[in-house]
Amino acid sequence: MAEAKVLSGAGLRGQVAGQTALSTVGQEGAGLTYRGYDVRELAAEARFEEVAYLLLYGELPNKTELAAYMGKLKTLRDLPQTLKEVLERIPADAHPMDVMRTGCSFLGNLEPELDFARERDVTDRLLAAFPAIMCYWYRFSHDGLRINCVTDEESIGGHFLHLLHDKKPSELHVKVMNVSLILYAEHEFNASTFTARVCASTLSDLYSCITAAIGALRGPLHGGANEAAMEMIERFSSAEEAVQGTLDMLARKDKIMGFGHAIYKDSDPRNEVIKGWSKKLADEVGDTTLFPVSEAIDKTMWEQKMLFPNADFYHASAYHFMGIPTKLFTPIFVCSRLTGWAAHVFEQRANNRIIRPSAEYIGVEQRKFVPIERR
Amino acid sequence: MAEAKVLSGAGLRGQVAGQTALSTVGQEGAGLTYRGYDVRELAAEARFEEVAYLLLYGELPNKTELAAYMGKLKTLRDLPQTLKEVLERIPADAHPMDVMRTGCSFLGNLEPELDFARERDVTDRLLAAFPAIMCYWYRFSHDGLRINCVTDEESIGGHFLHLLHDKKPSELHVKVMNVSLILYAEHEFNASTFTARVCASTLSDLYSCITAAIGALRGPLHGGANEAAMEMIERFSSAEEAVQGTLDMLARKDKIMGFGHAIYKDSDPRNEVIKGWSKKLADEVGDTTLFPVSEAIDKTMWEQKMLFPNADFYHASAYHFMGIPTKLFTPIFVCSRLTGWAAHVFEQRANNRIIRPSAEYIGVEQRKFVPIERR
Repeated sequence: MAEAKVLSGAGLRGQVAGQTALSTVGQEGAGLTYRGYDVRELAAEARFEEVAYLLLYGELPNKTELAAYMGKLKTLRDLPQTLKEVLERIPADAHPMDVMRTGCSFLGNLEPELDFARERDVTDRLLAAFPAIMCYWYRFSHDGLRINCVTDEESIGGHFLHLLHDKKPSELHVKVMNVSLILYAEHEFNASTFTARVCASTLSDLYSCITAAIGALRGPLHGGANEAAMEMIERFSSAEEAVQGTLDMLARKDKIMGFGHAIYKDSDPRNEVIKGWSKKLADEVGDTTLFPVSEAIDKTMWEQKMLFPNADFYHASAYHFMGIPTKLFTPIFVCSRLTGWAAHVFEQRANNRIIRPSAEYIGVEQRKFVPIERR
Repeated sequence: MAEAKVLSGAGLRGQVAGQTALSTVGQEGAGLTYRGYDVRELAAEARFEEVAYLLLYGELPNKTELAAYMGKLKTLRDLPQTLKEVLERIPADAHPMDVMRTGCSFLGNLEPELDFARERDVTDRLLAAFPAIMCYWYRFSHDGLRINCVTDEESIGGHFLHLLHDKKPSELHVKVMNVSLILYAEHEFNASTFTARVCASTLSDLYSCITAAIGALRGPLHGGANEAAMEMIERFSSAEEAVQGTLDMLARKDKIMGFGHAIYKDSDPRNEVIKGWSKKLADEVGDTTLFPVSEAIDKTMWEQKMLFPNADFYHASAYHFMGIPTKLFTPIFVCSRLTGWAAHVFEQRANNRIIRPSAEYIGVEQRKFVPIERR
């Protein structure tokens, strides 16, 4: 896609568009919090399902609540037969985010929300079904297989890896997927979440809001940074080559993905977490290239530009070490951020006014219609 | 769906969220203009395809350009076989806006935009294909028929009526559809258009933006007012009954759809146009109920509340007189507003900054994580 021109001062930057109790981004000493909890503590000590529950239901669950919640999600994993038939009709070269967008939208025809009282149930259904939507399409279009969409994995991360690789994932991989899903779950009024809220403000249904958010996350300025980072990292076969290559890209003023952030100024609190896990995975597989290349780019960006890696940069190598195809990186983001999107939709609905801003008119003055014969 | 609470001062009301050269809404002496032309002049003298061309390509076409454009649109009407198979899998009781959202999203898998240079071609394709997406699903799910999606109708409005009723529509009906599509084509930064622009600001593809906008238009606070108006009008069997019914609804503080407007203060310039055509259709069918009932409600609302009918109110009876099922009213809105949405996407891309506002945090203060054993 072509780059569009940048209009300074636009994009509602710094303008308050609403209220939220879900997260803080970039506040001093906090970094990123979900309902008051530091994301680093959550990533270290919680399951993703606990975090989903926290965002969607308001508080961390106790043992009984968590067991019931995970049990509920497990029963909601299979896809309706007609949805499978739709996914089978999407070609292998489709954009995986188009698949997620379509799968979500189609399910809305079969299992409509009907009443806002069902909003949490619909969210839980999507949370449970998204890994299967992604993997059923992927395995059918790429391997010609109609996979079983049900596994006995306890966690959503483990379930996804099991569907993708058709085998029980290692404990380490399940743990890293869990951490990754926590880190990506929520991020205040980012563009996809704001899309979901604008859609929700017309009192549309949850499927419409999530479908819209998936479409926004698909854009290369939003989701997809970890895929772009992966493509860059893979180009280098050693740390030395990566240093030189980064210097060359900087000299050419190429856009280097996975660095800096619109809100964070000094560091992205999610980076230290995923970098640590990427290192563990590198050690596990005996990697001597990808991780050193990543670190070399990281170091060079800091030395040359004082730019820090954001959440996406070490996600690239981490996912790669777990055997996840690069094209599925952004759909995994969907499986996680769904929780934040839905929680924002609930919040918008609970205190709604339709989001309808004004525009500055820069067009031609009013003019008289000219009939076609005289044009 | 439940009504949500209203938060005053929210919804970005009156805040400039960007620039546009496409339309003005509610400016003194102008009412509604598309690229400088009064919508009433366009509705009186232009074809919808001319207006689509004006919005999408920047100026009204001359005779040669219009002929070429209409010829192009005619070649793009048929649906891919796999899309038909998807539409056949959507149940008859699905929300027709879910069908439109899904049809648009699915087509994005088969015919992706790939490059922004294709943005006008993709829009033309959707403009030509939307009537068939709506009618193929409707006729298959309701009548069990696999319709031919191609007709020899010159106009989009005529094509839609022909697909729906399986016969050549009258000249009057084609004319009214044309007027209706013009009136609904564009309306500045309304919620669905703003949804499309937020989505576009991530540099996502056109299908994602339009899919998102359809989802937003689906909400009862946005599209769907003409359907709600129809349901109300149909409840009364005489003007006298309608007056009393309206008084009763006002006494109960019921929400009465199709009146007043967020931007227009004295009248909606689209109302006088569609009201006139609804009257002609009433005369044609010899109606002695629906139009008098509509006028009685209109008159009572003005006398009691000084509220004027907006674009949606007389659209209800107009569509009804043409034999259009009420549930397809909002999908017709999609076929028209697509032009405005797409033109706004082009505009956003041409001068883009990602739309990422701030939020006011109203949640709990930062707190220490409590392990699950101690909850």
